Amino acid sequence: MKRTEYPVAIRELIAQLRQMPGVGPRSAERIALWIVQARNEQPAGIARAIASTRDTIRPCLQCGFFATADLCEICADDSRARELLCVVEQPTDILPLEKTSAFRGRYHSLGGRISPLDRVAPEDLRIASLVERVEKEAPSEIIFALAADVEGEATTNYLVALLKKYPVTLTRIAHGLPAGGGLESADELTLSRALAGRTRL
Amino acid sequence: MKRTEYPVAIRELIAQLRQMPGVGPRSAERIALWIVQARNEQPAGIARAIASTRDTIRPCLQCGFFATADLCEICADDSRARELLCVVEQPTDILPLEKTSAFRGRYHSLGGRISPLDRVAPEDLRIASLVERVEKEAPSEIIFALAADVEGEATTNYLVALLKKYPVTLTRIAHGLPAGGGLESADELTLSRALAGRTRL
Repeated sequence: MKRTEYPVAIRELIAQLRQMPGVGPRSAERIALWIVQARNEQPAGIARAIASTRDTIRPCLQCGFFATADLCEICADDSRARELLCVVEQPTDILPLEKTSAFRGRYHSLGGRISPLDRVAPEDLRIASLVERVEKEAPSEIIFALAADVEGEATTNYLVALLKKYPVTLTRIAHGLPAGGGLESADELTLSRALAGRTRL
Repeated sequence: MKRTEYPVAIRELIAQLRQMPGVGPRSAERIALWIVQARNEQPAGIARAIASTRDTIRPCLQCGFFATADLCEICADDSRARELLCVVEQPTDILPLEKTSAFRGRYHSLGGRISPLDRVAPEDLRIASLVERVEKEAPSEIIFALAADVEGEATTNYLVALLKKYPVTLTRIAHGLPAGGGLESADELTLSRALAGRTRL
């Protein structure tokens, strides 16, 4: 007996939706059936938004953040301090930092981190343009805000070695206990970093 | 200080994606950033699949299941028994029944159930075409497989009253303990239905 299935177009749609991050087989099926059955123009609007965003959004030529012109909103903002430059891995790392309201400088997104396993070499990252900005903008401090893992550390170390010849203070954001986290829930590495990074009271 | 946000196009995309079922603000943001940053043609493929599925898929003129022609795969299959007709609420209820491999008849999807609260009256459902099929196809048995809740029951009762004048056996799928469910986890209504529906051993 032949098993009845959804028509090919629906199965194809489910397969396409499954490519989206965090969307498993069941939610892809649920979304696909919603798309097929919706009586309004919502699905068409979603299709248009996906296509048009791909056309509209491009990386800021200077820092790599999401932009609709050559420069992003942050780089185009003249009230931003040029003395402070914060280096992050991904453009998506910038908004969490912005939400803290604790930083009023500029950013530079590398577009990733050095990772031999994933075949990401320094040349694959926006490092040349970082050096160029350091020479041109002459910031007084560069804050490295990369991930607190092996590859984030290695990338930070690589950049520190590359930039230490410039007259700029190089710093890294603190590693330690997360807010609200007790000692009992912290792993050994976090605790040893929290100890090493202790500050005078 | 003005808060930096994503460019309007990204925020618009997030708002669009949030309309999909099961997609909350965080997963919408995650999917949107994936769409913006993907270096391949996957997002364009998804947009095309959404748009084209909407154009390709339509309800089967006979049973209401998903079809790409006038008749769906099931209605077009002549090896299917015409004597057995299974009435369901939604076209999406058909595949779960198919997966059991326990039914080789035909289906009729009502497109919903009678619900005064949601302003769904009998005229809003595919009831006229059900009556027409009963007259034309003269099935020997109609199995009602609607939800085991108040509105599902009420709709079943309405249809039974409407169809009892025809020479056809009217049945309903059993209500009782779900497979693997113990007595301690069953609610009172399920248990009383399981008792009422007891079968001789």
